[in-house]
Amino acid sequence: MTPYIPDLLEYCRGPACDVYFQRAADTLSAEGLDPTVTMEYFADRAGVLCGMRDVLGVMSRALAGGDELWALEEGASIAAREVVMRVRAPYSRIGRLETAVLGMLASCSGWATAAREVVTAAAGRRVISFGARHVHPLVGPVMEYAAVVGGCAGCATPMGAELAGLAGPSGTMPHAMILVFGDTVRAARAFDEHMPDDVLRIVLADTFKDEAEESLRVAEAMGARLRGVRLDTPWERGRVTVELVKEVRARLDQAGHGHVGIFVSGGMDAERVRQFVAAGAPVDSFGVGMAIAAAPPIGFTADIKEVAGVSRTKRGRIPGLTEAPRLRRVLPAATGAGSPA
Amino acid sequence: MTPYIPDLLEYCRGPACDVYFQRAADTLSAEGLDPTVTMEYFADRAGVLCGMRDVLGVMSRALAGGDELWALEEGASIAAREVVMRVRAPYSRIGRLETAVLGMLASCSGWATAAREVVTAAAGRRVISFGARHVHPLVGPVMEYAAVVGGCAGCATPMGAELAGLAGPSGTMPHAMILVFGDTVRAARAFDEHMPDDVLRIVLADTFKDEAEESLRVAEAMGARLRGVRLDTPWERGRVTVELVKEVRARLDQAGHGHVGIFVSGGMDAERVRQFVAAGAPVDSFGVGMAIAAAPPIGFTADIKEVAGVSRTKRGRIPGLTEAPRLRRVLPAATGAGSPA
Amino acid sequence: MTPYIPDLLEYCRGPACDVYFQRAADTLSAEGLDPTVTMEYFADRAGVLCGMRDVLGVMSRALAGGDELWALEEGASIAAREVVMRVRAPYSRIGRLETAVLGMLASCSGWATAAREVVTAAAGRRVISFGARHVHPLVGPVMEYAAVVGGCAGCATPMGAELAGLAGPSGTMPHAMILVFGDTVRAARAFDEHMPDDVLRIVLADTFKDEAEESLRVAEAMGARLRGVRLDTPWERGRVTVELVKEVRARLDQAGHGHVGIFVSGGMDAERVRQFVAAGAPVDSFGVGMAIAAAPPIGFTADIKEVAGVSRTKRGRIPGLTEAPRLRRVLPAATGAGSPA
Amino acid sequence: MTPYIPDLLEYCRGPACDVYFQRAADTLSAEGLDPTVTMEYFADRAGVLCGMRDVLGVMSRALAGGDELWALEEGASIAAREVVMRVRAPYSRIGRLETAVLGMLASCSGWATAAREVVTAAAGRRVISFGARHVHPLVGPVMEYAAVVGGCAGCATPMGAELAGLAGPSGTMPHAMILVFGDTVRAARAFDEHMPDDVLRIVLADTFKDEAEESLRVAEAMGARLRGVRLDTPWERGRVTVELVKEVRARLDQAGHGHVGIFVSGGMDAERVRQFVAAGAPVDSFGVGMAIAAAPPIGFTADIKEVAGVSRTKRGRIPGLTEAPRLRRVLPAATGAGSPA
Amino acid sequence: MTPYIPDLLEYCRGPACDVYFQRAADTLSAEGLDPTVTMEYFADRAGVLCGMRDVLGVMSRALAGGDELWALEEGASIAAREVVMRVRAPYSRIGRLETAVLGMLASCSGWATAAREVVTAAAGRRVISFGARHVHPLVGPVMEYAAVVGGCAGCATPMGAELAGLAGPSGTMPHAMILVFGDTVRAARAFDEHMPDDVLRIVLADTFKDEAEESLRVAEAMGARLRGVRLDTPWERGRVTVELVKEVRARLDQAGHGHVGIFVSGGMDAERVRQFVAAGAPVDSFGVGMAIAAAPPIGFTADIKEVAGVSRTKRGRIPGLTEAPRLRRVLPAATGAGSPA
Amino acid sequence: MTPYIPDLLEYCRGPACDVYFQRAADTLSAEGLDPTVTMEYFADRAGVLCGMRDVLGVMSRALAGGDELWALEEGASIAAREVVMRVRAPYSRIGRLETAVLGMLASCSGWATAAREVVTAAAGRRVISFGARHVHPLVGPVMEYAAVVGGCAGCATPMGAELAGLAGPSGTMPHAMILVFGDTVRAARAFDEHMPDDVLRIVLADTFKDEAEESLRVAEAMGARLRGVRLDTPWERGRVTVELVKEVRARLDQAGHGHVGIFVSGGMDAERVRQFVAAGAPVDSFGVGMAIAAAPPIGFTADIKEVAGVSRTKRGRIPGLTEAPRLRRVLPAATGAGSPA
Repeated sequence: MTPYIPDLLEYCRGPACDVYFQRAADTLSAEGLDPTVTMEYFADRAGVLCGMRDVLGVMSRALAGGDELWALEEGASIAAREVVMRVRAPYSRIGRLETAVLGMLASCSGWATAAREVVTAAAGRRVISFGARHVHPLVGPVMEYAAVVGGCAGCATPMGAELAGLAGPSGTMPHAMILVFGDTVRAARAFDEHMPDDVLRIVLADTFKDEAEESLRVAEAMGARLRGVRLDTPWERGRVTVELVKEVRARLDQAGHGHVGIFVSGGMDAERVRQFVAAGAPVDSFGVGMAIAAAPPIGFTADIKEVAGVSRTKRGRIPGLTEAPRLRRVLPAATGAGSPA
Repeated sequence: MTPYIPDLLEYCRGPACDVYFQRAADTLSAEGLDPTVTMEYFADRAGVLCGMRDVLGVMSRALAGGDELWALEEGASIAAREVVMRVRAPYSRIGRLETAVLGMLASCSGWATAAREVVTAAAGRRVISFGARHVHPLVGPVMEYAAVVGGCAGCATPMGAELAGLAGPSGTMPHAMILVFGDTVRAARAFDEHMPDDVLRIVLADTFKDEAEESLRVAEAMGARLRGVRLDTPWERGRVTVELVKEVRARLDQAGHGHVGIFVSGGMDAERVRQFVAAGAPVDSFGVGMAIAAAPPIGFTADIKEVAGVSRTKRGRIPGLTEAPRLRRVLPAATGAGSPA
Repeated sequence: MTPYIPDLLEYCRGPACDVYFQRAADTLSAEGLDPTVTMEYFADRAGVLCGMRDVLGVMSRALAGGDELWALEEGASIAAREVVMRVRAPYSRIGRLETAVLGMLASCSGWATAAREVVTAAAGRRVISFGARHVHPLVGPVMEYAAVVGGCAGCATPMGAELAGLAGPSGTMPHAMILVFGDTVRAARAFDEHMPDDVLRIVLADTFKDEAEESLRVAEAMGARLRGVRLDTPWERGRVTVELVKEVRARLDQAGHGHVGIFVSGGMDAERVRQFVAAGAPVDSFGVGMAIAAAPPIGFTADIKEVAGVSRTKRGRIPGLTEAPRLRRVLPAATGAGSPA
Repeated sequence: MTPYIPDLLEYCRGPACDVYFQRAADTLSAEGLDPTVTMEYFADRAGVLCGMRDVLGVMSRALAGGDELWALEEGASIAAREVVMRVRAPYSRIGRLETAVLGMLASCSGWATAAREVVTAAAGRRVISFGARHVHPLVGPVMEYAAVVGGCAGCATPMGAELAGLAGPSGTMPHAMILVFGDTVRAARAFDEHMPDDVLRIVLADTFKDEAEESLRVAEAMGARLRGVRLDTPWERGRVTVELVKEVRARLDQAGHGHVGIFVSGGMDAERVRQFVAAGAPVDSFGVGMAIAAAPPIGFTADIKEVAGVSRTKRGRIPGLTEAPRLRRVLPAATGAGSPA
Repeated sequence: MTPYIPDLLEYCRGPACDVYFQRAADTLSAEGLDPTVTMEYFADRAGVLCGMRDVLGVMSRALAGGDELWALEEGASIAAREVVMRVRAPYSRIGRLETAVLGMLASCSGWATAAREVVTAAAGRRVISFGARHVHPLVGPVMEYAAVVGGCAGCATPMGAELAGLAGPSGTMPHAMILVFGDTVRAARAFDEHMPDDVLRIVLADTFKDEAEESLRVAEAMGARLRGVRLDTPWERGRVTVELVKEVRARLDQAGHGHVGIFVSGGMDAERVRQFVAAGAPVDSFGVGMAIAAAPPIGFTADIKEVAGVSRTKRGRIPGLTEAPRLRRVLPAATGAGSPA
Repeated sequence: MTPYIPDLLEYCRGPACDVYFQRAADTLSAEGLDPTVTMEYFADRAGVLCGMRDVLGVMSRALAGGDELWALEEGASIAAREVVMRVRAPYSRIGRLETAVLGMLASCSGWATAAREVVTAAAGRRVISFGARHVHPLVGPVMEYAAVVGGCAGCATPMGAELAGLAGPSGTMPHAMILVFGDTVRAARAFDEHMPDDVLRIVLADTFKDEAEESLRVAEAMGARLRGVRLDTPWERGRVTVELVKEVRARLDQAGHGHVGIFVSGGMDAERVRQFVAAGAPVDSFGVGMAIAAAPPIGFTADIKEVAGVSRTKRGRIPGLTEAPRLRRVLPAATGAGSPA
């Protein structure tokens, strides 16, 4: 998932690890202390679990024979404080991974959870993640992967699509291209001429003219080749409204372009998607950016619950294993899975 | 800043780029269109500008002689919709960088802005960024860099410290180490024995016993070698309160440990820091995690404002250059800087 | 003011009078009771006094020699419960006028007060009352008169303008005309060709195309003859926004049409006008409809305070004359005015 | 309905018409343009349709043979944005009527809708409209007509009663009459002596004494001839309360005056009526003024939807006829009514 | 109930009586006026009736043969304005008791009502009234009696327990005792050694150490003799939380001390008790102080409804007897009880 | 202050003492433990300190030579958590007094604080405490004492007046007396005839008739002997309003009764008093009941801060003496007072 890191395990327990875990490792090593501990991981609020795929990749390399690991599946719906992973191993093998493991789960689950909310609001209409531009490019594709885990039907970057196992990225055309051409119809025709056949002809219809007028001009010019128009009205013009979508749909239909779909983007979030759906706005797909990309991470915590086979934990937590019947055994990879006794 | 990416420029305009910019590039290239455009970048809300250091690194490689670039400085306070960067170049040289450039600014400025708010609330007390565990490890160190740009005095990962130009990462000791030892005083003594001298002796004092009692035990055991105690009371015990800090301070002082500082962490955000400061809680430093790490990105936008020397932009925006007297010329790197005529 | 009523006095004390005043008159007459009473009129909330002009017209005809009348002036700012008129006359001459007198003051003062609030919000920009369509045509012109008393610079109906003493009504052009023409520029040219010179050339620029585009087309076509454009964006397109006005202004200026003013209408009220002014939107005039026309009436009350020279009033009110130093004597029309001893 | 206007049609399209409709008419006429248009009228919120009776009167005179008109009935409950009238005619015959037609519907529907809410709240008890004094006398009777359309059982002015087709206006006696008499019982006896038999003997019982005491005095004095008492406690004494009504009822009953009804007025609105009904206050009728008279108008809009048989409308609206199955054909007055194809 | 008052009847109608009742008595006596009156007593809001036991004691002494008294029972749930007592007697025998009778009912019913709310919230768990320290000691035991009437299972003072008919007061141990000992375990052992067997061994476990640690130390030290631990965490440490109770329960159970109950106190009110119960916190009993002791009194009123057999009352009240079918005859103490005709 | 308790000290440390203090005393005694402790008392919120007079009385009897006691004065304004009393004595002499001492301060300070708020709101007008009927008669006089400490000018019971050191209790006449007479004027005349001269002639003027009418009747009947009227309008008639007071004042003045004062009662609290004062209502005195009597107690706490000369306290509190410069030495009663070193 992150091919540009030469050795992800080393990265996680070295440069990306909170230094106090290294200091703890050094202190314990100097004392010759390395008991087997049982550690449990849980989230502080409910959501969609994501990031576990990479966590298991790192963990598998870190653990050794005899160590045990149980986990929930990528994409699972989880409850607040539910145990999502449990490891039983000498502390030295897992201590320095805490920062990275929690971080992967935190960011990815935050994004997937937000995506799930939007997708649920869309009630069957397609939702495409368009938010790579709102997060650092180092995690843009990872965010898109999480959005797809949360239910999005597509995403915008090539690496995001690859991580998510999609056939390819989704995209229409940027305002910039139309501005360079100076006319939407001219831009649309050139796009149609030069793009391979598997690229959908969806034309952005709000750059220079009112959306309804531009949609009709484009539909007139491209005829049956036009797959859809994208409405992305800027907030200075009041953003896309339910009424605009209805009017564009009506005008397209009245002019015989019933085959042309409507793609809506621009400041869409779960609440606005819900309003569009409730009002019966004839939207074919929604493009969603900030509402997923800016989702706050979900806080994850790792707790030692046993040391050398004895229940022990810090103040505020209950010692011993937490009941967690949904956990499935990952390591050792045996035929008979199950939660620990 | 991101040494593990072999070629950041290629990464930004390839796998991490929204596909529609690639399609626009292909269409325009097929049409032989490549006018010089002027593009402006601005944020949708006020904050602290961050990420510009890397943006300029990428841009410098992408642009050619004759192209022009103006920008504000890393760490600048910016207003909503203020122009933070302006580029004048053939569109083919900058079009595919839009996703990455906006993303760098979005994430980093979001983190730096949140850090600034906490640091301002702390009114002179040190704030250390402890939130790497709350974001994906690919950006954990980047987040810490941004937190330092926003005013934090330290951060927790080695790479974060390196990016931020600090002497080294900051950290005390994790609950896990104390749990393995089974006693805070024993853990503290081992830590003291094995750590190099430049590691501050700050002992976490809430794992097994009430914080006041544990703080006194540790102070008694370590005497003058103890630099501070860290209070990180879990929410199940009501988190760290102003009153707890005052009591620990009073008990330490009454027992002759006036030299021992108090470090507070656990769910601290700007509002809680403000309350601690207002109530006169004798805190020496604050450790802040989620409040910075989970900061929402700041939305950045790139707008074409001129094409081939003529004012042009999309509906909703005002064509032509925006007044931006604070911009400084970056390229061509001339002696006489200034904003464009 | 209401020339279509053959005899306004008779109308007020006959068909438009609450029947119980007629019954009271009949009963008192049968008993031969007709003492001189002093009646005071006041409003239940602060505002702009309006309707007094017509009230005095009716009163002057109803009263006889020896009767006395004091009043405040049309357009005066009044306090809650301030006495705005005082009459001393035999009860038979004023009893049946109560319904009409209170009604004139109630409606007109409500409208004038709302107009004053909008005009104050506009901080010097012109406000035109456009709300005749929101009230019954019998009072449409009266409402416009009151709006002018409240500070509006113009109104839309001929009779309203006449009542208000304006040179003539104000108006641009309706969407309907442009729809019949089928093109805004064609409609504008025809309008310019056929209208007398004293009609301002203000063209409605939102019927078919985006306002910015249409404004430029019209300005291009009409050149120096164009006085202004009216923006009346429907709510389905997000109403007129501050940003739209700024953009249209900038585009007009950039194209050399700095002489073309901007007239804004559509759902404007005091709050929105205040926001436009605060945001520095370059508006020349505001057209305001519902915010004035739908203003609730101000409740007025008439109280008998003396009967046959003796203080008397109903429970809840204080008998005797209320202190009212601002009242001016109207009848008998003497040189020495003043409030009653 | 408005007999004092010599020619209502001329009034509506002349002095009471927004001047821009006249200018549009002149421009179109000069251009020789007069296509048949289809215009639809709708409200911006739900309510009770009122004013249509007069609108149809004006329209019938304005239209000519071959023109078509469909409408909903006076008093119909309408939904937001439902089409309440549709006209197909040359534009010149209807254009200048827009101000007046919308205004009639706006004011009357606003009043009728408010009346409906109060009447619904009264749950079977009679509601009398007493608010003529709160609106300009030119529309006082019209307001009362609308209140009756909304469900009121009576109104106070002779012209209002005539417009509404009632046997006569309703009314008790004003405070002024009692003040002139100086005693409620004396006033009541005189009223009883001189009024025709068909005037209900309802005596206002709060002018000089506590309502309960006065009610008993009047009941004692008038015996079986007393039909009811009216309680109109001023706000300075806390207005009429549920408890007051219950006490007066109990005291009347205990003294053998069970036949005397209780009429409540003074600041009653739907909410207060609802509270009285919920609390079981033994009220026979409610007199309601401001709550109906000050109702805001309902905004009505007229949209051209077809020009010369072709769908056309302004931006923001959907061209072509709106589905409106409840419309009934009015003109041409044929046997087979129905909505247009 | 108040044995320290030599003659409660004299106290109530003398030093504790509002002086105007004495003046009324003197005036009436001087006039030789002493009609039989019927007086009714009612509360201004719903609640639990308490104080009636003492009221009846005083009334029984004040009344004479032939006088009549009806009342509801101590502890009855009453509605707002429901008659809770009715007396028919010469006014001289009851007039001066009004202050005291109303006061007994007011305070006691306020406390009982608050207790009932907490007890209902506790859903079966025991509630002990611990609030004597929050009210004047003259009424501390009375408050506790009322709390038991409201449903509390115990109270803290000897006199309170006696008034309430309990076997004895409830109590654990104060912080002060543990502070004098300097160690909780030492204090607990001494307590166990010296207390009679019928005193429950419930040890306060939060004085010096974290509650979980202290609870385990005490349980270890006292073994089967320990009945429970009391958690009373001060607000400076975040008060007792649901999570703390769960952790202490788990740690006690894991160490084999399942027989040790958990008693929770410190700022508990109905809302917090409800939250503990809803969250499944394993609490055995709650100690409640302020939430009951600080309950506002319930306002009681006494109204004369008949004088000398004739209905009479003051303005605002309905003369004559109120329907009150739940009243039971108290005096004359006959076999056939019932409400008065 | 509580003469009916034969031995207040024994009462406080016996029947009215929380049993666990007795058990602590027995345990410590059995162990032979009786160190000198320093105990501090403080309130949890700001207010007016009251009850200290009795507390010092009890304490003085409980302490012995050599014991020390510092305190603030009765009636002092205190801050939240300010030390109001400090005692240094063997624990056995003060332990069992904790319940009573805290309870005296809690109730009395609650009442005095509420009284202070009302008195402040009254801005110089007299406030009389009329609330004895709202609290148990055992504390009715104590509540009145506290109200006077808080600033009230008078109270209603003889014992309350005695405790507060007033010349005598205040009172007008009850509704009951007027009801027995059947007429307010008749009652007023009898009252005037039989009462001693030092009883103010203030007549309750709302029993049978409207307050304004009744006030005039009484003033007419009693002439110069009338000192004032009391308005106590029941809530069923809307309570006393500002307007009622103004009207009664005006009518009294117009009839030449300017010497008659107005006394207002009935549901008055600080907020309503503030409104009356702000509105300029001509009130001479306010009678206040529930607003003072139902004031919640102020929570007081007693903390051991030293044991045998060594700082010691419970978790959550700071050991050692709290800075308290306002404390004054009470015992030993020396010439040189001061706070302890």
